[in-house]
Amino acid sequence: MKFKLENKDQHSKARAGEIQTDHGLIQTPIFMPVGTAGSVKAVHQRELTYDVKAQIILGNTYHLYLRPGLEVLEKAGGLHKFMGWSSPILTDSGGYQVFSLEGNRKIKEEGVVFKSHIDGSKHHFTPESVMDIQRTIGADIIMAFDECTPFPCDWSYAKNSMHLTHRWLKRCIDQFDNTSGKYGYSQSLFPIVQGSTFKDLRMDAARFVSDQDREGNAIGGLSVGEPAEMMYEMTDLVTDILPEDKPRYLMGVGTPANILEGIALGIDMFDCVMPTRNARNGMLFTSEGIINIRNERWKMDFSPLDSGFDSHVSNFYSKAYLRHLTISKEMLAAQIASIHNLSFYLWLVTQAREHIQAGDFTTWKNAMVEKVSRRL
Amino acid sequence: MKFKLENKDQHSKARAGEIQTDHGLIQTPIFMPVGTAGSVKAVHQRELTYDVKAQIILGNTYHLYLRPGLEVLEKAGGLHKFMGWSSPILTDSGGYQVFSLEGNRKIKEEGVVFKSHIDGSKHHFTPESVMDIQRTIGADIIMAFDECTPFPCDWSYAKNSMHLTHRWLKRCIDQFDNTSGKYGYSQSLFPIVQGSTFKDLRMDAARFVSDQDREGNAIGGLSVGEPAEMMYEMTDLVTDILPEDKPRYLMGVGTPANILEGIALGIDMFDCVMPTRNARNGMLFTSEGIINIRNERWKMDFSPLDSGFDSHVSNFYSKAYLRHLTISKEMLAAQIASIHNLSFYLWLVTQAREHIQAGDFTTWKNAMVEKVSRRL
Repeated sequence: MKFKLENKDQHSKARAGEIQTDHGLIQTPIFMPVGTAGSVKAVHQRELTYDVKAQIILGNTYHLYLRPGLEVLEKAGGLHKFMGWSSPILTDSGGYQVFSLEGNRKIKEEGVVFKSHIDGSKHHFTPESVMDIQRTIGADIIMAFDECTPFPCDWSYAKNSMHLTHRWLKRCIDQFDNTSGKYGYSQSLFPIVQGSTFKDLRMDAARFVSDQDREGNAIGGLSVGEPAEMMYEMTDLVTDILPEDKPRYLMGVGTPANILEGIALGIDMFDCVMPTRNARNGMLFTSEGIINIRNERWKMDFSPLDSGFDSHVSNFYSKAYLRHLTISKEMLAAQIASIHNLSFYLWLVTQAREHIQAGDFTTWKNAMVEKVSRRL
Repeated sequence: MKFKLENKDQHSKARAGEIQTDHGLIQTPIFMPVGTAGSVKAVHQRELTYDVKAQIILGNTYHLYLRPGLEVLEKAGGLHKFMGWSSPILTDSGGYQVFSLEGNRKIKEEGVVFKSHIDGSKHHFTPESVMDIQRTIGADIIMAFDECTPFPCDWSYAKNSMHLTHRWLKRCIDQFDNTSGKYGYSQSLFPIVQGSTFKDLRMDAARFVSDQDREGNAIGGLSVGEPAEMMYEMTDLVTDILPEDKPRYLMGVGTPANILEGIALGIDMFDCVMPTRNARNGMLFTSEGIINIRNERWKMDFSPLDSGFDSHVSNFYSKAYLRHLTISKEMLAAQIASIHNLSFYLWLVTQAREHIQAGDFTTWKNAMVEKVSRRL
């Protein structure tokens, strides 16, 4: 994997770059649609490429490990081949999902014991096993096994948790460096900066993570309920420390405004379930603002969902039609809204990239944040 | 609307033809995907055209009348514009759906009073109102309001019901002929042959319907639980009477084998929810036979769903992947299976047409019926 930093904004920390992987190029800043269990919900692979224009997608290790399971994935030749996706894939470590299984998991020094949400069966994730699992899934970028602290969380819990994450990181690195990819292409390991909402811990963690000198770095444990300003403050601190010549990934973020602010703070990669999950609930992110498509207001509005950018579904289907489908519980509603929202997110980061290159990112960003945050 | 009978098979009653409508050409025999409430479930309009290769789809008057309702449909300029489908549409009369609301509907000479399955509100369908509703929906082909008899049903009930259907047909024709299309293109009314499974009634009904001299004719009340042989026997009787120079539509039929046998009996048009409904339950109709994709047998089968014909989803996705999506309850499972099944149905009727034209339909049909009925 190679990262090339191409442009830096003069009035913010925004950057434009390129990540070269064995499955192709990723132009940053980038948003990664979430494909939990080997499918970006309600979206065909062909639509991901040609409509959404996704350059990289994310898979969830926890879900893929449980279903279809490693035997199937390995026999298929990895997740790319299994699902028919030939562009890059990033997998999370499963940590976040496992820690969300409150009451059904135990954290120890060795790792985490948890019960499957599917059948209650007992499983064990360790830093080592999680590296092996991600080797088998075969993602291009794999994430270190970390503890994601909840919000709020007290300083001493956050501090101990951060140290556990760092000890686990060392074990992840050992295991990763002593194994190799199973399918003939290379994989990269990204460590994760934790530290909750505490400045001193975030700075310690950022330094520790930077010192590992991996091919990219991530910021975890944000967008978990804290105010947006706090998320921006932590991100700002951390990106001041993380090396400039490596991609930076802000995990699980966020709204269109969050992403634009994250880019301004020097973030290159984002993922979030929001565009797809909210789509399934009838919420559209558009170039004019946020739409609740169930609203009576759209009943007779035969204008396109969003004519602000080039996207087949957004230009082809009307608000009145999507409202009808949503209210009638037709599956096509979720399909249309998911493609639309993802297309919008990808359009937004591509626009950000162009404005960074053109040198007017900050002005554009400030106007855009306001526009995309409006509720229509 | 114009029907051109192009070829007749020498060894069966199969025919190849063309129906010219103001929304384009339909090559027969044809299968019509069901788009209940303005959406063929789980399938984008673009996929219907380019993947499924649908030439005409069916809308349900009962569902469209309740949701989105006539006000929205009229303001949109009809269903074609509302949903973004510029090829032909056929609407049923709502009769079948209304009669299915057992305990929530009352049949009288005037029409049917029923309660909405959505909110329990009371509505009234008459032959006249159903013509007006279908004028507003704006389908190219609209169906007469009839009573669809259940199976089994005694002779005297079937006889009285048939006479009611005929009295209603006269009223439908009066209303239809005294109104005109609302959107600048022409609409055609098809009467329906009823008569349950009684030869004398079916023959009476076929003669009565033929005498109305409309642009096409339909056979209703079959595929409602009777043995397939009985359905074929009734169809055979009726197509002997219906005029040769008009398209014949066998409503609500059926499995791939039913459709092939129907074609052999002189049927030109079919519709059925089976390819889409069964798709949502994990049943695939393929060129090699019937697949229950949940079966353990497919767990490690990375071969394409069906490589027997040209279809993107059928060739692109593997059985193991679709099995995983189905078991994981991913929406994409229903999307893939629906497109596959519909593509297969459309491929099958297109093949039938080519074999009728080539003169070897019966040999091909007999081999194909066996093949597509196998359970893999």
